[in-house]
Amino acid sequence: MVATDIPAGTADNNRAETTVTSFRIIEALKSREYAGVTELAEELDLAKGTVHKHLNTLRELDYVIKEDHEYRLSLSFLGLGTAVRSRLPVYQEARQPLEKLTAATGEVASLMIPEHGYGIYVLRTYEGDHPDVNVNEGERLPLHATAGGKAILSYTPADERERILDVRGLPRLTENTITDRDALIDELRLVRDRRTSYDRAEYRENWHCIAQPITNEENRAIAAVTVSGPAERMEQKDSATDLASLVGSTVNSLQNRFYADY
Amino acid sequence: MVATDIPAGTADNNRAETTVTSFRIIEALKSREYAGVTELAEELDLAKGTVHKHLNTLRELDYVIKEDHEYRLSLSFLGLGTAVRSRLPVYQEARQPLEKLTAATGEVASLMIPEHGYGIYVLRTYEGDHPDVNVNEGERLPLHATAGGKAILSYTPADERERILDVRGLPRLTENTITDRDALIDELRLVRDRRTSYDRAEYRENWHCIAQPITNEENRAIAAVTVSGPAERMEQKDSATDLASLVGSTVNSLQNRFYADY
Repeated sequence: MVATDIPAGTADNNRAETTVTSFRIIEALKSREYAGVTELAEELDLAKGTVHKHLNTLRELDYVIKEDHEYRLSLSFLGLGTAVRSRLPVYQEARQPLEKLTAATGEVASLMIPEHGYGIYVLRTYEGDHPDVNVNEGERLPLHATAGGKAILSYTPADERERILDVRGLPRLTENTITDRDALIDELRLVRDRRTSYDRAEYRENWHCIAQPITNEENRAIAAVTVSGPAERMEQKDSATDLASLVGSTVNSLQNRFYADY
Repeated sequence: MVATDIPAGTADNNRAETTVTSFRIIEALKSREYAGVTELAEELDLAKGTVHKHLNTLRELDYVIKEDHEYRLSLSFLGLGTAVRSRLPVYQEARQPLEKLTAATGEVASLMIPEHGYGIYVLRTYEGDHPDVNVNEGERLPLHATAGGKAILSYTPADERERILDVRGLPRLTENTITDRDALIDELRLVRDRRTSYDRAEYRENWHCIAQPITNEENRAIAAVTVSGPAERMEQKDSATDLASLVGSTVNSLQNRFYADY
Protein backbone atom coordinates (compact mmCIF):
# COMPACT_ATOMS: atom_id res chain seq x y z
CA MET A 1 0.00 0.00 0.00
CA VAL A 2 3.03 2.26 0.15
CA ALA A 3 3.72 3.72 -3.25
CA THR A 4 6.19 6.26 -1.99
CA ASP A 5 8.37 4.96 0.82
CA ILE A 6 11.40 5.76 -1.27
CA PRO A 7 14.27 6.57 1.09
CA ALA A 8 16.47 9.50 0.12
CA GLY A 9 19.65 7.50 0.74
CA THR A 10 21.59 7.01 3.94
CA ALA A 11 24.83 8.61 5.03
CA ASP A 12 27.54 6.01 4.48
CA ASN A 13 28.61 5.95 8.10
CA ASN A 14 25.14 4.80 9.11
CA ARG A 15 24.95 2.00 6.61
CA ALA A 16 25.65 -1.68 7.23
CA GLU A 17 28.05 -2.10 4.30
CA THR A 18 28.43 -5.84 4.83
CA THR A 19 24.67 -6.27 4.38
CA VAL A 20 24.80 -4.18 1.21
CA THR A 21 27.47 -6.54 -0.14
CA SER A 22 25.44 -9.62 0.80
CA PHE A 23 22.42 -8.28 -1.08
CA ARG A 24 24.56 -7.42 -4.11
CA ILE A 25 25.55 -11.10 -4.18
CA ILE A 26 21.93 -12.21 -3.60
CA GLU A 27 20.73 -10.05 -6.50
CA ALA A 28 23.48 -11.35 -8.78
CA LEU A 29 22.36 -14.90 -7.92
CA LYS A 30 18.71 -13.96 -8.55
CA SER A 31 19.39 -13.49 -12.24
CA ARG A 32 21.11 -16.85 -12.81
CA GLU A 33 20.52 -20.49 -11.99
CA TYR A 34 23.93 -21.17 -10.46
CA ALA A 35 27.13 -19.18 -10.08
CA GLY A 36 30.67 -19.87 -8.96
CA VAL A 37 32.79 -17.72 -6.63
CA THR A 38 35.13 -16.49 -9.39
CA GLU A 39 32.26 -15.46 -11.67
CA LEU A 40 30.54 -13.49 -8.89
CA ALA A 41 33.79 -11.85 -7.75
CA GLU A 42 34.48 -10.63 -11.29
CA GLU A 43 30.96 -9.38 -11.94
CA LEU A 44 30.72 -7.53 -8.63
CA ASP A 45 34.35 -6.39 -8.47
CA LEU A 46 34.89 -8.06 -5.11
CA ALA A 47 37.75 -10.18 -3.76
CA LYS A 48 37.13 -13.93 -4.13
CA GLY A 49 37.70 -14.34 -0.38
CA THR A 50 34.95 -11.79 0.32
CA VAL A 51 32.46 -13.51 -1.98
CA HIS A 52 33.32 -16.87 -0.43
CA LYS A 53 32.78 -15.53 3.08
CA HIS A 54 29.38 -14.06 2.18
CA LEU A 55 28.24 -17.22 0.38
CA ASN A 56 29.31 -19.35 3.35
CA THR A 57 27.39 -17.13 5.72
CA LEU A 58 24.24 -17.12 3.57
CA ARG A 59 24.53 -20.89 3.21
CA GLU A 60 24.81 -21.30 6.96
CA LEU A 61 21.64 -19.19 7.29
CA ASP A 62 19.92 -21.51 4.74
CA TYR A 63 19.47 -18.73 2.14
CA VAL A 64 21.99 -20.15 -0.31
CA ILE A 65 22.50 -23.72 -1.56
CA LYS A 66 25.83 -25.17 -2.66
CA GLU A 67 25.74 -27.85 -5.34
CA ASP A 68 28.79 -29.15 -7.21
CA HIS A 69 30.99 -26.13 -6.28
CA GLU A 70 28.32 -23.69 -7.48
CA TYR A 71 25.82 -21.64 -5.54
CA ARG A 72 22.17 -20.70 -5.97
CA LEU A 73 19.55 -18.95 -3.86
CA SER A 74 17.43 -21.24 -1.71
CA LEU A 75 13.65 -21.42 -1.45
CA SER A 76 13.83 -19.66 1.95
CA PHE A 77 13.25 -16.41 0.05
CA LEU A 78 9.93 -17.81 -1.19
CA GLY A 79 8.90 -18.33 2.46
CA LEU A 80 9.78 -14.71 3.32
CA GLY A 81 7.92 -13.45 0.24
CA THR A 82 4.71 -15.40 0.79
CA ALA A 83 4.69 -14.37 4.46
CA VAL A 84 4.71 -10.70 3.41
CA ARG A 85 2.09 -11.27 0.73
CA SER A 86 -0.27 -13.24 2.96
CA ARG A 87 -0.56 -10.23 5.29
CA LEU A 88 -1.94 -7.92 2.58
CA PRO A 89 -5.70 -7.81 3.31
CA VAL A 90 -6.60 -7.30 -0.36
CA TYR A 91 -4.53 -10.35 -1.37
CA GLN A 92 -6.48 -12.57 1.02
CA GLU A 93 -9.71 -11.72 -0.77
CA ALA A 94 -8.44 -11.62 -4.32
CA ARG A 95 -7.93 -15.22 -5.40
CA GLN A 96 -11.52 -16.19 -6.13
CA PRO A 97 -12.54 -12.95 -7.91
CA LEU A 98 -9.38 -13.13 -10.04
CA GLU A 99 -10.03 -16.76 -10.95
CA LYS A 100 -13.51 -15.76 -12.07
CA LEU A 101 -12.07 -12.93 -14.15
CA THR A 102 -9.68 -15.36 -15.82
CA ALA A 103 -12.55 -17.77 -16.52
CA ALA A 104 -14.62 -14.92 -18.04
CA THR A 105 -11.83 -13.51 -20.22
CA GLY A 106 -9.57 -16.50 -20.88
CA GLU A 107 -6.60 -14.19 -20.18
CA VAL A 108 -4.14 -13.54 -17.36
CA ALA A 109 -5.75 -11.64 -14.48
CA SER A 110 -3.49 -9.95 -11.92
CA LEU A 111 -3.57 -8.00 -8.69
CA MET A 112 -0.97 -5.20 -8.64
CA ILE A 113 0.18 -3.53 -5.41
CA PRO A 114 2.19 -0.26 -5.33
CA GLU A 115 5.40 -0.34 -3.31
CA HIS A 116 8.58 1.72 -3.36
CA GLY A 117 7.42 3.57 -6.48
CA TYR A 118 6.92 0.35 -8.47
CA GLY A 119 3.96 -1.87 -9.24
CA ILE A 120 4.16 -5.50 -8.12
CA TYR A 121 1.86 -8.31 -9.25
CA VAL A 122 1.22 -10.23 -6.03
CA LEU A 123 -1.23 -12.67 -7.62
CA ARG A 124 -1.64 -13.83 -11.21
CA THR A 125 -4.30 -16.31 -12.32
CA TYR A 126 -4.43 -18.00 -15.69
CA GLU A 127 -5.55 -21.12 -17.47
CA GLY A 128 -3.80 -23.61 -19.64
CA ASP A 129 -0.49 -25.29 -19.97
CA HIS A 130 1.77 -22.67 -21.52
CA PRO A 131 0.36 -19.35 -20.38
CA ASP A 132 1.76 -16.12 -21.75
CA VAL A 133 2.98 -15.15 -18.32
CA ASN A 134 6.36 -13.48 -18.59
CA VAL A 135 6.33 -11.57 -15.32
CA ASN A 136 6.63 -13.51 -12.06
CA GLU A 137 4.60 -12.69 -8.99
CA GLY A 138 6.79 -10.35 -6.95
CA GLU A 139 8.60 -8.73 -9.90
CA ARG A 140 8.66 -4.93 -9.94
CA LEU A 141 7.15 -3.11 -12.89
CA PRO A 142 7.36 0.56 -13.85
CA LEU A 143 4.13 2.38 -12.94
CA HIS A 144 4.17 4.78 -15.91
CA ALA A 145 4.33 2.02 -18.54
CA THR A 146 1.69 -0.42 -17.27
CA ALA A 147 -2.11 -0.26 -17.15
CA GLY A 148 -2.10 -1.27 -13.46
CA GLY A 149 0.54 1.36 -12.71
CA LYS A 150 -1.40 4.12 -14.47
CA ALA A 151 -4.58 3.13 -12.60
CA ILE A 152 -2.62 3.41 -9.34
CA LEU A 153 -0.85 6.68 -10.23
CA SER A 154 -4.14 8.33 -11.19
CA TYR A 155 -5.48 7.67 -7.68
CA THR A 156 -2.27 8.71 -5.85
CA PRO A 157 -2.05 12.22 -4.30
CA ALA A 158 -0.25 14.63 -6.66
CA ASP A 159 2.75 15.31 -4.39
CA GLU A 160 3.46 11.60 -3.94
CA ARG A 161 2.99 10.98 -7.64
CA GLU A 162 5.51 13.72 -8.46
CA ARG A 163 8.03 12.17 -6.09
CA ILE A 164 7.61 8.74 -7.67
CA LEU A 165 8.10 10.17 -11.16
CA ASP A 166 11.15 12.16 -9.98
CA VAL A 167 12.83 9.12 -8.49
CA ARG A 168 11.80 6.37 -10.93
CA GLY A 169 11.74 8.48 -14.10
CA LEU A 170 9.84 7.54 -17.26
CA PRO A 171 12.15 5.07 -18.99
CA ARG A 172 11.23 4.09 -22.56
CA LEU A 173 10.40 0.37 -22.88
CA THR A 174 8.70 0.26 -26.27
CA GLU A 175 8.03 2.88 -28.94
CA ASN A 176 4.59 3.40 -27.33
CA THR A 177 5.82 4.12 -23.79
CA ILE A 178 4.77 7.56 -22.54
CA THR A 179 8.05 9.25 -21.66
CA ASP A 180 6.86 12.86 -21.44
CA ARG A 181 5.64 13.84 -18.01
CA ASP A 182 2.95 16.28 -19.20
CA ALA A 183 1.58 13.67 -21.60
CA LEU A 184 1.46 11.17 -18.74
CA ILE A 185 -0.38 13.62 -16.45
CA ASP A 186 -2.94 14.24 -19.23
CA GLU A 187 -3.42 10.50 -19.62
CA LEU A 188 -3.81 10.01 -15.86
CA ARG A 189 -6.55 12.66 -15.85
CA LEU A 190 -8.39 10.67 -18.53
CA VAL A 191 -7.93 7.48 -16.49
CA ARG A 192 -9.47 9.22 -13.49
CA ASP A 193 -12.48 10.28 -15.58
CA ARG A 194 -13.25 6.81 -16.86
CA ARG A 195 -11.64 4.81 -13.98
CA THR A 196 -10.11 2.48 -16.58
CA SER A 197 -6.53 2.50 -17.89
CA TYR A 198 -4.98 0.85 -20.91
CA ASP A 199 -1.50 -0.23 -21.80
CA ARG A 200 -1.29 -0.55 -25.56
CA ALA A 201 2.13 -2.12 -26.03
CA GLU A 202 3.70 0.46 -23.74
CA TYR A 203 5.52 -2.05 -21.57
CA ARG A 204 6.06 -4.88 -24.02
CA GLU A 205 5.64 -5.18 -27.80
CA ASN A 206 2.34 -6.70 -28.97
CA TRP A 207 1.02 -6.90 -25.44
CA HIS A 208 -2.07 -5.12 -24.19
CA CYS A 209 -3.43 -4.68 -20.71
CA ILE A 210 -6.50 -3.11 -19.13
CA ALA A 211 -6.82 -2.13 -15.47
CA GLN A 212 -8.95 -0.48 -12.81
CA PRO A 213 -7.89 0.68 -9.34
CA ILE A 214 -9.13 -0.57 -5.98
CA THR A 215 -9.45 2.54 -3.83
CA ASN A 216 -9.81 3.09 -0.10
CA GLU A 217 -11.98 5.49 1.92
CA GLU A 218 -9.68 8.35 0.94
CA ASN A 219 -10.14 7.54 -2.76
CA ARG A 220 -6.53 6.47 -2.95
CA ALA A 221 -5.44 3.39 -4.92
CA ILE A 222 -4.28 0.52 -2.74
CA ALA A 223 -4.12 -1.92 -5.66
CA ALA A 224 -5.20 -2.47 -9.26
CA VAL A 225 -6.86 -5.37 -11.04
CA THR A 226 -5.59 -6.07 -14.55
CA VAL A 227 -6.24 -8.35 -17.52
CA SER A 228 -3.50 -8.74 -20.10
CA GLY A 229 -2.79 -10.68 -23.25
CA PRO A 230 -1.56 -10.55 -26.86
CA ALA A 231 -2.59 -7.27 -28.53
CA GLU A 232 -4.74 -8.67 -31.31
CA ARG A 233 -6.59 -11.16 -29.11
CA MET A 234 -7.22 -8.50 -26.45
CA GLU A 235 -8.71 -6.15 -29.09
CA GLN A 236 -11.00 -8.86 -30.43
CA LYS A 237 -12.12 -9.77 -26.92
CA ASP A 238 -12.66 -6.15 -25.94
CA SER A 239 -15.00 -5.51 -28.87
CA ALA A 240 -16.83 -8.79 -28.17
CA THR A 241 -17.26 -8.61 -24.40
CA ASP A 242 -16.25 -5.16 -23.06
CA LEU A 243 -13.27 -6.14 -20.92
CA ALA A 244 -13.55 -2.92 -18.89
CA SER A 245 -16.89 -3.95 -17.45
CA LEU A 246 -15.58 -7.42 -16.55
CA VAL A 247 -12.60 -5.85 -14.76
CA GLY A 248 -15.03 -3.40 -13.14
CA SER A 249 -17.18 -6.22 -11.73
CA THR A 250 -14.11 -7.84 -10.20
CA VAL A 251 -12.99 -4.54 -8.67
CA ASN A 252 -16.46 -3.93 -7.23
CA SER A 253 -16.64 -7.38 -5.72
CA LEU A 254 -13.16 -7.00 -4.20
CA GLN A 255 -13.82 -3.51 -2.94
CA ASN A 256 -16.97 -4.78 -1.22
CA ARG A 257 -15.18 -7.73 0.36
CA PHE A 258 -12.23 -5.63 1.38
CA TYR A 259 -14.16 -2.85 3.01
CA ALA A 260 -16.60 -5.27 4.60
CA ASP A 261 -13.72 -6.00 7.00
CA TYR A 262 -13.72 -2.48 8.36
CA MET B 1 16.60 -31.04 -5.39
CA VAL B 2 19.14 -30.80 -2.58
CA ALA B 3 17.84 -32.54 0.49
CA THR B 4 21.16 -32.49 2.27
CA ASP B 5 23.15 -29.35 1.64
CA ILE B 6 23.25 -28.77 5.39
CA PRO B 7 26.46 -26.89 6.19
CA ALA B 8 28.33 -28.07 9.27
CA GLY B 9 28.73 -24.49 10.53
CA THR B 10 31.41 -21.95 9.70
CA ALA B 11 34.34 -20.86 11.83
CA ASP B 12 33.34 -17.50 13.32
CA ASN B 13 36.27 -15.65 11.77
CA ASN B 14 34.99 -16.51 8.31
CA ARG B 15 31.44 -15.36 8.89
CA ALA B 16 29.91 -12.05 7.84
CA GLU B 17 28.44 -11.22 11.27
CA THR B 18 26.69 -8.08 10.02
CA THR B 19 24.78 -10.16 7.49
CA VAL B 20 23.81 -12.62 10.23
CA THR B 21 22.38 -9.71 12.24
CA SER B 22 20.47 -8.37 9.23
CA PHE B 23 18.84 -11.77 8.67
CA ARG B 24 17.99 -12.06 12.38
CA ILE B 25 16.08 -8.79 11.95
CA ILE B 26 14.51 -9.97 8.67
CA GLU B 27 13.32 -13.20 10.31
CA ALA B 28 11.89 -11.32 13.28
CA LEU B 29 9.97 -9.11 10.83
CA LYS B 30 8.77 -12.19 8.93
CA SER B 31 6.67 -13.29 11.86
CA ARG B 32 4.86 -9.99 12.37
CA GLU B 33 3.04 -7.41 10.28
CA TYR B 34 4.93 -4.36 11.54
CA ALA B 35 7.56 -3.79 14.23
CA GLY B 36 9.24 -0.79 15.85
CA VAL B 37 12.95 -0.37 16.57
CA THR B 38 12.56 -0.75 20.36
CA GLU B 39 10.52 -3.93 20.06
CA LEU B 40 13.07 -5.52 17.72
CA ALA B 41 16.03 -4.41 19.83
CA GLU B 42 14.48 -6.02 22.92
CA GLU B 43 13.52 -9.24 21.21
CA LEU B 44 16.90 -9.72 19.55
CA ASP B 45 19.01 -8.31 22.40
CA LEU B 46 20.60 -5.70 20.15
CA ALA B 47 21.30 -2.00 20.68
CA LYS B 48 18.58 0.27 19.29
CA GLY B 49 21.19 2.09 17.21
CA THR B 50 22.24 -1.21 15.64
CA VAL B 51 18.66 -2.17 14.75
CA HIS B 52 18.07 1.30 13.33
CA LYS B 53 21.17 1.09 11.15
CA HIS B 54 20.20 -2.32 9.78
CA LEU B 55 16.61 -1.26 9.10
CA ASN B 56 17.82 1.88 7.32
CA THR B 57 20.16 -0.15 5.16
CA LEU B 58 17.50 -2.72 4.28
CA ARG B 59 15.09 0.10 3.51
CA GLU B 60 17.59 1.76 1.22
CA LEU B 61 17.96 -1.60 -0.57
CA ASP B 62 14.13 -1.75 -0.93
CA TYR B 63 13.79 -4.87 1.24
CA VAL B 64 12.10 -3.08 4.14
CA ILE B 65 9.23 -0.56 4.17
CA LYS B 66 8.78 2.17 6.77
CA GLU B 67 5.21 3.22 7.53
CA ASP B 68 4.18 5.41 10.47
CA HIS B 69 7.46 4.83 12.40
CA GLU B 70 7.13 1.07 12.03
CA TYR B 71 8.84 -1.34 9.68
CA ARG B 72 7.79 -4.36 7.63
CA LEU B 73 9.41 -6.56 5.01
CA SER B 74 8.80 -5.47 1.42
CA LEU B 75 7.51 -7.53 -1.48
CA SER B 76 11.06 -7.64 -2.93
CA PHE B 77 11.46 -10.97 -1.13
CA LEU B 78 8.55 -12.33 -3.16
CA GLY B 79 10.45 -11.42 -6.34
CA LEU B 80 13.57 -13.27 -5.12
CA GLY B 81 11.46 -16.28 -4.11
CA THR B 82 9.51 -16.62 -7.36
CA ALA B 83 12.76 -16.22 -9.35
CA VAL B 84 14.21 -19.23 -7.51
CA ARG B 85 11.01 -21.22 -7.89
CA SER B 86 10.58 -20.51 -11.58
CA ARG B 87 13.93 -22.17 -12.30
CA LEU B 88 12.90 -25.55 -10.86
CA PRO B 89 12.15 -27.67 -13.96
CA VAL B 90 9.51 -29.74 -12.15
CA TYR B 91 7.69 -26.57 -11.00
CA GLN B 92 7.36 -25.37 -14.58
CA GLU B 93 5.44 -28.49 -15.50
CA ALA B 94 3.42 -28.93 -12.33
CA ARG B 95 0.67 -26.33 -12.46
CA GLN B 96 -1.74 -27.99 -14.84
CA PRO B 97 -1.42 -31.54 -13.43
CA LEU B 98 -1.91 -30.17 -9.90
CA GLU B 99 -4.97 -28.18 -10.93
CA LYS B 100 -6.43 -31.37 -12.42
CA LEU B 101 -5.70 -33.22 -9.17
CA THR B 102 -7.48 -30.52 -7.19
CA ALA B 103 -10.45 -30.71 -9.56
CA ALA B 104 -10.59 -34.52 -9.19
CA THR B 105 -10.30 -34.54 -5.39
CA GLY B 106 -11.73 -31.21 -4.30
CA GLU B 107 -8.77 -30.90 -1.90
CA VAL B 108 -5.48 -29.00 -1.71
CA ALA B 109 -2.86 -30.46 -4.05
CA SER B 110 0.79 -29.54 -3.52
CA LEU B 111 4.23 -30.01 -4.98
CA MET B 112 6.89 -30.49 -2.28
CA ILE B 113 10.61 -30.01 -2.94
CA PRO B 114 13.36 -31.17 -0.54
CA GLU B 115 15.91 -28.53 0.45
CA HIS B 116 18.27 -28.15 3.39
CA GLY B 117 16.73 -31.18 5.12
CA TYR B 118 13.20 -29.75 5.01
CA GLY B 119 10.25 -30.14 2.66
CA ILE B 120 8.92 -27.01 0.95
CA TYR B 121 5.61 -26.69 -0.86
CA VAL B 122 6.51 -24.66 -3.95
CA LEU B 123 3.02 -24.83 -5.46
CA ARG B 124 -0.39 -25.35 -3.86
CA THR B 125 -3.62 -25.48 -5.85
CA TYR B 126 -7.10 -25.38 -4.36
CA GLU B 127 -10.65 -24.34 -5.03
CA GLY B 128 -13.08 -22.17 -3.19
CA ASP B 129 -13.17 -19.04 -1.16
CA HIS B 130 -11.87 -20.08 2.25
CA PRO B 131 -9.54 -22.95 1.57
CA ASP B 132 -8.06 -24.91 4.45
CA VAL B 133 -4.59 -23.82 3.47
CA ASN B 134 -2.55 -23.10 6.55
CA VAL B 135 0.91 -23.51 5.09
CA ASN B 136 2.20 -20.89 2.65
CA GLU B 137 4.14 -21.75 -0.45
CA GLY B 138 7.79 -21.50 0.57
CA GLU B 139 7.31 -22.53 4.22
CA ARG B 140 9.59 -25.28 5.48
CA LEU B 141 8.03 -28.45 6.83
CA PRO B 142 9.65 -31.31 8.74
CA LEU B 143 10.23 -34.30 6.46
CA HIS B 144 9.56 -36.97 9.11
CA ALA B 145 6.06 -35.70 9.99
CA THR B 146 4.56 -35.11 6.54
CA ALA B 147 3.38 -37.45 3.80
CA GLY B 148 5.42 -35.55 1.19
CA GLY B 149 8.47 -35.66 3.44
CA LYS B 150 8.18 -39.39 4.01
CA ALA B 151 7.77 -40.00 0.28
CA ILE B 152 10.97 -37.99 -0.28
CA LEU B 153 12.94 -39.62 2.57
CA SER B 154 12.06 -43.12 1.35
CA TYR B 155 13.70 -42.32 -2.02
CA THR B 156 16.78 -40.59 -0.55
CA PRO B 157 20.06 -42.56 -0.25
CA ALA B 158 20.49 -43.99 3.27
CA ASP B 159 23.60 -41.97 4.21
CA GLU B 160 21.95 -38.67 3.26
CA ARG B 161 18.76 -39.64 5.05
CA GLU B 162 20.74 -40.42 8.21
CA ARG B 163 22.42 -37.02 8.05
CA ILE B 164 19.07 -35.23 7.64
CA LEU B 165 17.60 -37.07 10.64
CA ASP B 166 20.76 -36.35 12.70
CA VAL B 167 20.58 -32.62 12.00
CA ARG B 168 16.82 -31.99 11.92
CA GLY B 169 15.81 -34.57 14.53
CA LEU B 170 12.30 -36.01 14.87
CA PRO B 171 10.41 -33.35 16.82
CA ARG B 172 6.95 -34.31 18.08
CA LEU B 173 4.19 -32.18 16.53
CA THR B 174 1.09 -34.19 17.41
CA GLU B 175 0.53 -37.36 19.42
CA ASN B 176 0.75 -39.30 16.13
CA THR B 177 4.15 -37.98 15.02
CA ILE B 178 6.72 -40.75 14.56
CA THR B 179 9.56 -39.74 16.90
CA ASP B 180 11.45 -43.03 17.05
CA ARG B 181 14.05 -43.40 14.34
CA ASP B 182 13.70 -47.19 13.94
CA ALA B 183 9.93 -46.86 13.64
CA LEU B 184 10.41 -44.20 10.96
CA ILE B 185 12.86 -46.38 9.01
CA ASP B 186 10.34 -49.26 9.11
CA GLU B 187 7.63 -46.92 7.82
CA LEU B 188 9.87 -45.62 5.02
CA ARG B 189 10.50 -49.21 3.92
CA LEU B 190 6.72 -49.70 3.64
CA VAL B 191 6.42 -46.44 1.68
CA ARG B 192 9.05 -47.69 -0.73
CA ASP B 193 7.13 -50.95 -1.24
CA ARG B 194 3.84 -49.28 -2.09
CA ARG B 195 5.25 -45.91 -3.38
CA THR B 196 2.55 -44.09 -1.39
CA SER B 197 2.92 -42.37 1.98
CA TYR B 198 0.33 -41.19 4.47
CA ASP B 199 0.31 -38.55 7.17
CA ARG B 200 -2.50 -39.39 9.57
CA ALA B 201 -2.56 -36.32 11.80
CA GLU B 202 1.20 -36.56 12.32
CA TYR B 203 1.91 -32.93 11.46
CA ARG B 204 -1.36 -31.29 12.49
CA GLU B 205 -4.39 -32.51 14.45
CA ASN B 206 -7.33 -33.75 12.35
CA TRP B 207 -5.41 -33.29 9.13
CA HIS B 208 -4.53 -36.08 6.70
CA CYS B 209 -2.27 -36.13 3.70
CA ILE B 210 -1.33 -38.65 1.02
CA ALA B 211 1.75 -38.39 -1.19
CA GLN B 212 3.87 -40.04 -3.85
CA PRO B 213 7.43 -39.18 -4.90
CA ILE B 214 8.63 -37.96 -8.29
CA THR B 215 11.92 -39.77 -8.88
CA ASN B 216 14.79 -39.22 -11.29
CA GLU B 217 16.88 -41.63 -13.35
CA GLU B 218 18.75 -42.65 -10.19
CA ASN B 219 15.44 -43.51 -8.46
CA ARG B 220 15.96 -40.62 -6.10
CA ALA B 221 13.09 -38.31 -5.06
CA ILE B 222 13.36 -34.82 -6.50
CA ALA B 223 9.84 -33.84 -5.33
CA ALA B 224 6.56 -35.22 -4.03
CA VAL B 225 2.94 -34.66 -5.02
CA THR B 226 0.48 -34.49 -2.13
CA VAL B 227 -3.25 -34.14 -1.46
CA SER B 228 -4.33 -33.00 1.99
CA GLY B 229 -7.49 -32.15 3.85
CA PRO B 230 -9.52 -32.62 7.03
CA ALA B 231 -9.12 -36.17 8.39
CA GLU B 232 -12.73 -37.32 8.15
CA ARG B 233 -13.32 -35.91 4.66
CA MET B 234 -10.06 -37.41 3.40
CA GLU B 235 -11.06 -40.85 4.72
CA GLN B 236 -14.47 -40.68 3.07
CA LYS B 237 -12.92 -39.57 -0.22
CA ASP B 238 -10.24 -42.25 -0.06
CA SER B 239 -12.78 -45.03 0.30
CA ALA B 240 -14.92 -43.50 -2.48
CA THR B 241 -12.27 -42.71 -5.08
CA ASP B 242 -8.88 -44.22 -4.11
CA LEU B 243 -6.87 -41.05 -3.64
CA ALA B 244 -3.59 -42.95 -4.09
CA SER B 245 -4.40 -43.75 -7.69
CA LEU B 246 -5.36 -40.12 -8.42
CA VAL B 247 -2.06 -38.92 -6.92
CA GLY B 248 -0.32 -41.68 -8.89
CA SER B 249 -1.77 -40.47 -12.21
CA THR B 250 -0.55 -36.95 -11.48
CA VAL B 251 2.93 -38.20 -10.61
CA ASN B 252 3.07 -40.30 -13.78
CA SER B 253 2.01 -37.40 -15.93
CA LEU B 254 4.58 -35.11 -14.29
CA GLN B 255 7.33 -37.67 -14.46
CA ASN B 256 6.65 -38.10 -18.19
CA ARG B 257 6.67 -34.36 -18.82
CA PHE B 258 9.73 -33.82 -16.71
CA TYR B 259 11.85 -36.52 -18.23
CA ALA B 260 10.66 -35.71 -21.72
CA ASP B 261 12.97 -32.69 -21.38
CA TYR B 262 16.08 -34.85 -21.14
